[in-house]
Amino acid sequence: MSHRIAILGASGYTGAELVRLIATHPTMEITALAGERKAGMAMSAVYPHLRHLALPDLVRVEDVDFGGIDLAFCALPHGTSAEVIAGLPRDLKIVDLSADFRIKDPAAYETWYGKPHAAPKLLPEAVYGLTEFYRDEICAARLVAGTGCNAATGQFALRPLIAAGVIDLDDIVIDLKAAASGAGRSAKEHLLMAELYENVLPYSMGGKHRHLGEFDQEFSAIAGRPVRIRMSPHLIPAARGIVVTAHVKGDPRAAHGALSAAYAAEAFIHVLPFGSLPQMKDVRGSNFCHLGVVGDRVPGCATVVAVLDNLTKGSSGQAVQNANLMLGEEETAGLMLAPMFP
Amino acid sequence: MSHRIAILGASGYTGAELVRLIATHPTMEITALAGERKAGMAMSAVYPHLRHLALPDLVRVEDVDFGGIDLAFCALPHGTSAEVIAGLPRDLKIVDLSADFRIKDPAAYETWYGKPHAAPKLLPEAVYGLTEFYRDEICAARLVAGTGCNAATGQFALRPLIAAGVIDLDDIVIDLKAAASGAGRSAKEHLLMAELYENVLPYSMGGKHRHLGEFDQEFSAIAGRPVRIRMSPHLIPAARGIVVTAHVKGDPRAAHGALSAAYAAEAFIHVLPFGSLPQMKDVRGSNFCHLGVVGDRVPGCATVVAVLDNLTKGSSGQAVQNANLMLGEEETAGLMLAPMFP
Amino acid sequence: MSHRIAILGASGYTGAELVRLIATHPTMEITALAGERKAGMAMSAVYPHLRHLALPDLVRVEDVDFGGIDLAFCALPHGTSAEVIAGLPRDLKIVDLSADFRIKDPAAYETWYGKPHAAPKLLPEAVYGLTEFYRDEICAARLVAGTGCNAATGQFALRPLIAAGVIDLDDIVIDLKAAASGAGRSAKEHLLMAELYENVLPYSMGGKHRHLGEFDQEFSAIAGRPVRIRMSPHLIPAARGIVVTAHVKGDPRAAHGALSAAYAAEAFIHVLPFGSLPQMKDVRGSNFCHLGVVGDRVPGCATVVAVLDNLTKGSSGQAVQNANLMLGEEETAGLMLAPMFP
Amino acid sequence: MSHRIAILGASGYTGAELVRLIATHPTMEITALAGERKAGMAMSAVYPHLRHLALPDLVRVEDVDFGGIDLAFCALPHGTSAEVIAGLPRDLKIVDLSADFRIKDPAAYETWYGKPHAAPKLLPEAVYGLTEFYRDEICAARLVAGTGCNAATGQFALRPLIAAGVIDLDDIVIDLKAAASGAGRSAKEHLLMAELYENVLPYSMGGKHRHLGEFDQEFSAIAGRPVRIRMSPHLIPAARGIVVTAHVKGDPRAAHGALSAAYAAEAFIHVLPFGSLPQMKDVRGSNFCHLGVVGDRVPGCATVVAVLDNLTKGSSGQAVQNANLMLGEEETAGLMLAPMFP
Repeated sequence: MSHRIAILGASGYTGAELVRLIATHPTMEITALAGERKAGMAMSAVYPHLRHLALPDLVRVEDVDFGGIDLAFCALPHGTSAEVIAGLPRDLKIVDLSADFRIKDPAAYETWYGKPHAAPKLLPEAVYGLTEFYRDEICAARLVAGTGCNAATGQFALRPLIAAGVIDLDDIVIDLKAAASGAGRSAKEHLLMAELYENVLPYSMGGKHRHLGEFDQEFSAIAGRPVRIRMSPHLIPAARGIVVTAHVKGDPRAAHGALSAAYAAEAFIHVLPFGSLPQMKDVRGSNFCHLGVVGDRVPGCATVVAVLDNLTKGSSGQAVQNANLMLGEEETAGLMLAPMFP
Repeated sequence: MSHRIAILGASGYTGAELVRLIATHPTMEITALAGERKAGMAMSAVYPHLRHLALPDLVRVEDVDFGGIDLAFCALPHGTSAEVIAGLPRDLKIVDLSADFRIKDPAAYETWYGKPHAAPKLLPEAVYGLTEFYRDEICAARLVAGTGCNAATGQFALRPLIAAGVIDLDDIVIDLKAAASGAGRSAKEHLLMAELYENVLPYSMGGKHRHLGEFDQEFSAIAGRPVRIRMSPHLIPAARGIVVTAHVKGDPRAAHGALSAAYAAEAFIHVLPFGSLPQMKDVRGSNFCHLGVVGDRVPGCATVVAVLDNLTKGSSGQAVQNANLMLGEEETAGLMLAPMFP
Repeated sequence: MSHRIAILGASGYTGAELVRLIATHPTMEITALAGERKAGMAMSAVYPHLRHLALPDLVRVEDVDFGGIDLAFCALPHGTSAEVIAGLPRDLKIVDLSADFRIKDPAAYETWYGKPHAAPKLLPEAVYGLTEFYRDEICAARLVAGTGCNAATGQFALRPLIAAGVIDLDDIVIDLKAAASGAGRSAKEHLLMAELYENVLPYSMGGKHRHLGEFDQEFSAIAGRPVRIRMSPHLIPAARGIVVTAHVKGDPRAAHGALSAAYAAEAFIHVLPFGSLPQMKDVRGSNFCHLGVVGDRVPGCATVVAVLDNLTKGSSGQAVQNANLMLGEEETAGLMLAPMFP
Repeated sequence: MSHRIAILGASGYTGAELVRLIATHPTMEITALAGERKAGMAMSAVYPHLRHLALPDLVRVEDVDFGGIDLAFCALPHGTSAEVIAGLPRDLKIVDLSADFRIKDPAAYETWYGKPHAAPKLLPEAVYGLTEFYRDEICAARLVAGTGCNAATGQFALRPLIAAGVIDLDDIVIDLKAAASGAGRSAKEHLLMAELYENVLPYSMGGKHRHLGEFDQEFSAIAGRPVRIRMSPHLIPAARGIVVTAHVKGDPRAAHGALSAAYAAEAFIHVLPFGSLPQMKDVRGSNFCHLGVVGDRVPGCATVVAVLDNLTKGSSGQAVQNANLMLGEEETAGLMLAPMFP
């Protein structure tokens, strides 16, 4: 039997990616699509690549009949999402792809997002949606907070190293390369083909990137003491994909061992043999994350590289993975699509 | 029950694309992978994006045990393919992705490919693999010849117009835009990122492109008299995708009507409303072909645009579609993957 | 002695390209830069790639002191440009890069641009800025109308063929490939890296592209009777560059001969040997236009390919070329920069 | 009066870039072009973008008459270059773009390049070609060794910091992003458009990149003790450009101050205001290097970003800059071409 699914905020890239994934999902069925600015339009008018699908037209969120919905994905903007979710039926399962429920501490949320949290009462029940590390809580959750796409990539590279105590917690640098779709379908000059083509653009450097809030929360929790990493993000001339190059101090083979052990049973996380590194394109369009570790010529230093597709494993694929668990399905249902190369 | 599949020539792009598609196919199982130069290697060493799959290692074609194989895809180079196929068991079903069995007339083959055909005795039984137009023959075939990727795109745009008699047969121009993967995994200067990036490169213009041999054969057969189109191919700075812009003479609405009627029941071919045109990216990674027609300000002239993914609908997806029919499966089995956008 | 130059509308791509070219021009000096939305800003804040230059800050057009200006380039939006130019001193030399003075007939202007012309009294004195064909008039002109970038490319390919009477005037098809910067620095969804990357996007097909107004005017004048071509434009995933593929009927060698003869003495126009075609990247960043002709296998048919850089030879380079003539300088002054490859 | 120039190894990208730059150089004239594999060909057949220039045909090195040559640029492969240079006239000025004379210590050369040095007797007279830091020696030199393109970028970011003693010498990490042309015109699978497009590819990580030999030599010399940095290079989907993101420990404002002071009088090196960072495209096609510094939220940590064009400031532009000095010309002669954006 199919689960009836609503997507709120379906007109953005993560909304379209949810539709793409659910299109071949064995037990999910899209019952409602909502999007403010595009309400009244056919989804195929907003995203012609979906024209082969029989989809409901876009409506306003308030016009969705949630009575028959089993689970809603919220791909709304930060701030709006918390407001909307606060007004949804209490028995509706929700996977939120915004940033609103990622940060447990409302004060920290306000620091990073520049405004008070819109629904602080819901924060305690929200489960952080990094499936591989919160599986049990997600199975039991009503509200799951999808992680930041960069935050997911960095955590896949670093959580096991922090947990295993094999790296220096005070000297972690993430050099991040992120493709343009991570900025959403927002028409801004620096995201234009004419400008980003043949370009690399540093942004939010020096500790300003909001996903640091997630790193701080999660890494500190694992370590049992404050951990504050450094992160240098760069926009790269590509549509999809994230590369985290983590420069860490610790024994490289111990780091590789910790990653291999942590992910040995994971369907979506692949650790390459020691000394091999993944390329970004190897996971494009898929729910996989590839990881590699090399030792440096400088003893006691290692480089960890993690790659994933920001729209899939970094957001919408992760969201479906979490929804699978919440709905009692196989975690991998609908998500074993092979990466697209070349 | 699964059909046991061999892929001969698995180390090229079409081979890798076959593996990608079969990875989520409900009733196909890869039993053997063969590739001359890469024999002895793991497929994941040749294509790391496939490392999540349990695949047999690459072997030499002569080391494949065809006893347990139900169907073989041959993605070998032109010339080699015919030779190899001539030596395969007579009861093995074969989908050939090379050019060797596309051209029925051995003399025409020699004209276009510059050498005598290596297995002319097999030509009579080979069925041309444009599924939507040779469905019945393909269902009954032992040997199916996959079409050229550009030839497929152009035929989707033009066959119904020729069949319906709504365009001038002596004045058909195809302006073709083709992405780099159509040239295969061959390391040539003009295919380098440094050279093709920010470039458009005309090639094989003036009547030299080999896929014209297919157009001549097919269009003449439909028309019942010789038809020789003009075609101007361009390499474009992209990895996947083909755009055919066909400039024809005839009533635009009649042209649109002919296309709409021809494809009304087709799962993979979508004709847009009159006056709307598809973009290349809308079918990326999928088995779909999108078509559109606009009328020109010059009366009696129309422009037809067809887009597809050269590695999917243009070759490996088409091959799986044909194999589905040959194996008695649903034609769409494993092929309803939604396009990847953005 | 240097000529004192003002650029009105300096914050767009053609404005920035003018600055790039004038930066190494031997006898031009930028005295004023004007731009409405960016007035008050340093040019290096709008375009950091120009930060090595000592440039005046951006001001509003009305704050420019035209007293000391010898020539003004107007790179303002269509409509605005005519209004502004109507208010400029009568003795100021002007090269307009907008569409406002390209079309001689105000009624035709209104048809193509959807509003009445803002300064019809100036139309008679405006000279069409295709330098190679209006050289004498431009030398004597006060107001020169820069051509459309696509219109320039198509005219370089076709004017000599029409003038020589070697092609069928009623059967000319231009298949156009245009890079993203031709659409200007305007933040629109379809121009985003995430969307245009790995894409080809047909637009303004069927006779809607405004540059057809220029083709109609010019080709009809040459032919001495109405000529209406067909044109199919496509956006391609590149930042700079235009490819015109002209499908014409006529003797290919006669066509090649007409082009070779027409451009034999031209510094910027290069006709390749018969049968060779140019690639788009070969002229990037330069004021050159490369042309080639191939004959088709269908007798009496030829394909002409023209490539140029839309921001240089297609607009700002052409503008400087015209300004050189208007100021009594060498036509090639400052414009012999070699193309950038790869 | 013009200096007569020979380019040995003119068929590679750096050779073509030398021709591009010399094309508008006021006092250089290309007298001979040599290239082994392409000997006998016109340069315009190898690089059609140079077809507007009157250039000598390519010949074999042994067929060049060095009698009338003032200066030779050697853009030959590593190893070959030293051999060829050893056989050139002793009074010929030479700028070598290969790696052969960058490393002063023949043992270190052998370690990094895997074979004994082919002309160790010439090593003592070779001057390291980082113009801004070896200006006086270069003015007096006969043989100048052009730096590695990545090595140049990293040194522009770090030399002043090491010299000023404002960063921890034992904790320097360079995260490098390099475009495809840095790998030369070599047809390799991983450099294909189809593979590198939409990709990021880590390479030579962990201390294997040969340019580390230059960093070791130079940084240790400045510091007066061994300095061994860590470097993580990535191939990015672009044709030209390098981004160095240097993660260092030290006071960010002191770092910015050191850079600003070091480059205050330099024509080609621009340090942005504290807290601003450059983008890669801002220097494309030019001889400029842009630098920026941001402080991190973690106290005592800074990120320095340096961008340049690998083919210009990273190799051929630097080579012309050095040649200018060796020939007694203005250092900036022919090199003030503005960057090309977009």
